[in-house]
Amino acid sequence: MDEVIKLNMETKFREMLNKIQAYNYVFALIGWDSNTEAPRNSFKRRAEVMGILSKELFALQTAKEYKDVIIGLYEKIDTLDDNLKREIKKAKKDLDKVVNIPEEEYVEYTKLIQMSQLVWEDAKKNNDYASFKENLKQIIEFNKKFALYYAPEKNPYDTMLDDYEEGMTTKEYDEFFNKLKKDLVPFVKEILSHGNSDYDKLINDYFDPKKQQEFCDYLTDVLKFDRNSGLMKKSVHPFTWNTSPEDVRFTTRYLENYVFSSIFAAIHELGHATYEQQISTEWDGTLLHGGTSMGIHESQSRFYENIVGRSLAFWETHLDKFKSLFPDQTKGLTPMDMYKAVNKAEASMIRVEADELTYSLHIMLRYDIERKMVSGEVTVDDLPELWNSLMEEYLGIKPKNDSEGVLQDVHWSGGMIGYFPTYALGTAYSAQIYYAMLKDLNLEEIIKANQIEKVNKWLKEKIHKYGSSKTPKELMLEVTGEDFDAKYYIKYLKDKYTNIYLK
Amino acid sequence: MDEVIKLNMETKFREMLNKIQAYNYVFALIGWDSNTEAPRNSFKRRAEVMGILSKELFALQTAKEYKDVIIGLYEKIDTLDDNLKREIKKAKKDLDKVVNIPEEEYVEYTKLIQMSQLVWEDAKKNNDYASFKENLKQIIEFNKKFALYYAPEKNPYDTMLDDYEEGMTTKEYDEFFNKLKKDLVPFVKEILSHGNSDYDKLINDYFDPKKQQEFCDYLTDVLKFDRNSGLMKKSVHPFTWNTSPEDVRFTTRYLENYVFSSIFAAIHELGHATYEQQISTEWDGTLLHGGTSMGIHESQSRFYENIVGRSLAFWETHLDKFKSLFPDQTKGLTPMDMYKAVNKAEASMIRVEADELTYSLHIMLRYDIERKMVSGEVTVDDLPELWNSLMEEYLGIKPKNDSEGVLQDVHWSGGMIGYFPTYALGTAYSAQIYYAMLKDLNLEEIIKANQIEKVNKWLKEKIHKYGSSKTPKELMLEVTGEDFDAKYYIKYLKDKYTNIYLK
Repeated sequence: MDEVIKLNMETKFREMLNKIQAYNYVFALIGWDSNTEAPRNSFKRRAEVMGILSKELFALQTAKEYKDVIIGLYEKIDTLDDNLKREIKKAKKDLDKVVNIPEEEYVEYTKLIQMSQLVWEDAKKNNDYASFKENLKQIIEFNKKFALYYAPEKNPYDTMLDDYEEGMTTKEYDEFFNKLKKDLVPFVKEILSHGNSDYDKLINDYFDPKKQQEFCDYLTDVLKFDRNSGLMKKSVHPFTWNTSPEDVRFTTRYLENYVFSSIFAAIHELGHATYEQQISTEWDGTLLHGGTSMGIHESQSRFYENIVGRSLAFWETHLDKFKSLFPDQTKGLTPMDMYKAVNKAEASMIRVEADELTYSLHIMLRYDIERKMVSGEVTVDDLPELWNSLMEEYLGIKPKNDSEGVLQDVHWSGGMIGYFPTYALGTAYSAQIYYAMLKDLNLEEIIKANQIEKVNKWLKEKIHKYGSSKTPKELMLEVTGEDFDAKYYIKYLKDKYTNIYLK
Repeated sequence: MDEVIKLNMETKFREMLNKIQAYNYVFALIGWDSNTEAPRNSFKRRAEVMGILSKELFALQTAKEYKDVIIGLYEKIDTLDDNLKREIKKAKKDLDKVVNIPEEEYVEYTKLIQMSQLVWEDAKKNNDYASFKENLKQIIEFNKKFALYYAPEKNPYDTMLDDYEEGMTTKEYDEFFNKLKKDLVPFVKEILSHGNSDYDKLINDYFDPKKQQEFCDYLTDVLKFDRNSGLMKKSVHPFTWNTSPEDVRFTTRYLENYVFSSIFAAIHELGHATYEQQISTEWDGTLLHGGTSMGIHESQSRFYENIVGRSLAFWETHLDKFKSLFPDQTKGLTPMDMYKAVNKAEASMIRVEADELTYSLHIMLRYDIERKMVSGEVTVDDLPELWNSLMEEYLGIKPKNDSEGVLQDVHWSGGMIGYFPTYALGTAYSAQIYYAMLKDLNLEEIIKANQIEKVNKWLKEKIHKYGSSKTPKELMLEVTGEDFDAKYYIKYLKDKYTNIYLK
């Protein structure tokens, strides 16, 4: 009898979740369209439609019968099979996140976020932090309040961090970033002191966007992306999109005077896309579909971008193709030249343009600030000053204005607090995964033989196929035989950059 | 008090319709995506999602509260303002079409249609009519049955015709096609007897698809298409798509050895697109959005395609651009040469490749067959023979197999019976509209001055802006001062082709 009730509840859960996931598919498709090709004036009708559908989705997600069935199954959690157990835990968590928020606060917050993104855009354009800080203050307050509704006894920043990377807390991030501060910052300073402008002409030369696209098409094949289950397109901001492993799309952009932007954005997104394409379709429509966390996702994109794409072996293999497309700009260029050019390290203001060596220091700065913002140690009034002084401390440079300082990123205006740290964490994961992979594969030879499918297969079996059925911590432990440890990341960077700059 | 009830009903109607239209937006976007760029394997997840959403939409459309409010407002129809009156009439008609069909029959029919399209594809590929005819038989039976549920006293084919062109019946179509039989068929035979292969080299020469695309981009600007409210893309079958006047997209295709295909498909779709872009946004989300009928829509696409795009003035104005893109293929080509080439008339098997002169005869044949299929005068066993004998009668040629005969079109396999006649009707509308336009505008001079915006404006004021708020019959009467009359179409074709072939 109990079994029958459980089965009925599971059927009901599946039925309602199917509807919710259908809505998510729709919102994803609308997003893909509007971020790639939708004409400018289409926004009006789209906004009306999204307004109507958002209400429907919210009603589904908060419907009493959905709540009841999740709570009912949660009460029997120990009797469920492993996959359903994990799904119900996730569903219960999502539910708890929402149900404790009074509806009027939720509506107010949604409006605030919509407004704030416009305010931030203008503020960044006009270098006018003052016009944005009141919005930011409210966003922080709301996020704190919501975190405390969910877990009154917890540090609210811990709750936010867990939203983006399951299981991560300030304790663990502190440890991670403290290691970087201790071991990486001095090393970065040493490397940067050497300077390097040997390849600036190449880096900023003109490259025909159509030819750039041809090269990115080539890279798509090099990485063995399955074109029957995906496509490449262009957009202002590169991103990866998916509704199932059989429909995974990514974009890159083509900057006339910065060819590396399109190349490494493409490889980065191909990393995300390969992860999504290799997830087992058995999770389609369930809560276990898609990559398991921001950090693990970023570990895959960074792995392909940096460890594969910025390796000497990669350019020994693919420089000829590049040179055939751009003979004028690449006369006499050797694989070693290219390797050094794509690994140029420098202190720079803008995170998204930062090189592999300095990237995590940009993130560390944001983590420090978020931690203090949420605890109340600093107010929004202190942020520009704090930002600038941390830039000086970590990278030895100072923004000349807030647009290239505290206003540079979209995340906070969108309510995303706790997201940034996953970028650095994911990058550090990738190094640990890399050393684990080396026990099984000779990566250098595989790259030289243009057989990335062997790498794809290894990652599929170890990580990708599981979708979200395993937590990030479970995956790291199973793949590498130990918990996450930043030492691999530091070793990887030191080895690589010592070789390039200090030998 | 009565006013309050009416107002409440209208509010409820609007609220439910908003949801229905949001679903329609979603299905449109999914269709656009899947017909233009979605990767092949995406179909599985898409089918699941569409299954879920279709059920939701069907539930909305047949919800008791929606029915009640439509019936309630319909009972007070005389007290409603004109726009709401027309909306409610449409809603009532849609409702009546659906509610009288037993749900299990509807489900069975939906399955039949899905299956039949695959069966038809294979049958066409394998030239195997026998494998398709049982499906066709059932499709006809279902369509008859449904038409009789809706209007037991009416000729079911009249009901079907009205589905695609409001107000049209066999009586009127008979009259139309009889005129064509009497006046056009002998004229076409005379023209075809002259033969014309002077420009076959040009017509079948190789044209680089990328350059073709450049020329279609140019045409998009020539026709003053608003790129802020739309875009051009490519697809296997050209089509126009819209969710509001501010988001209208169209496609064309590029055949390497048939450049006219991309050019005239683009202009044709630009005609549909211009119509949709020029509809007043006041109808957004209502039942009066979008073009008013298949026939009026086709009149606009055919107007731009044939009357504008296949005119001598058009090529006097735009041939230079064409020649600059394709200097090798167009050496010594004059505007008159181009005019004759794009107006080459010949008896051909395939409707979609037919020229302006013979096109309607292909439609007439389909009308004859549909009429007899629905009345039961012929069975599916008779169709191939009937098709072939009519081809011989109207065009003097005989298909060598059923793939280029009775199996060539997708429509019947999709359950669309009564659709074909609107193609000919719309084309004939366009000639009548053309002669009305000549009273106000000097079209030839406008084309030569590259000022199509003047034509667009005339059509906007006379036809486009009204959306579906007027019936096709009302529009024809208001625009041309009289009811539809096929004589204009016949005169137009005789004048044009006499000039080209007989002088």
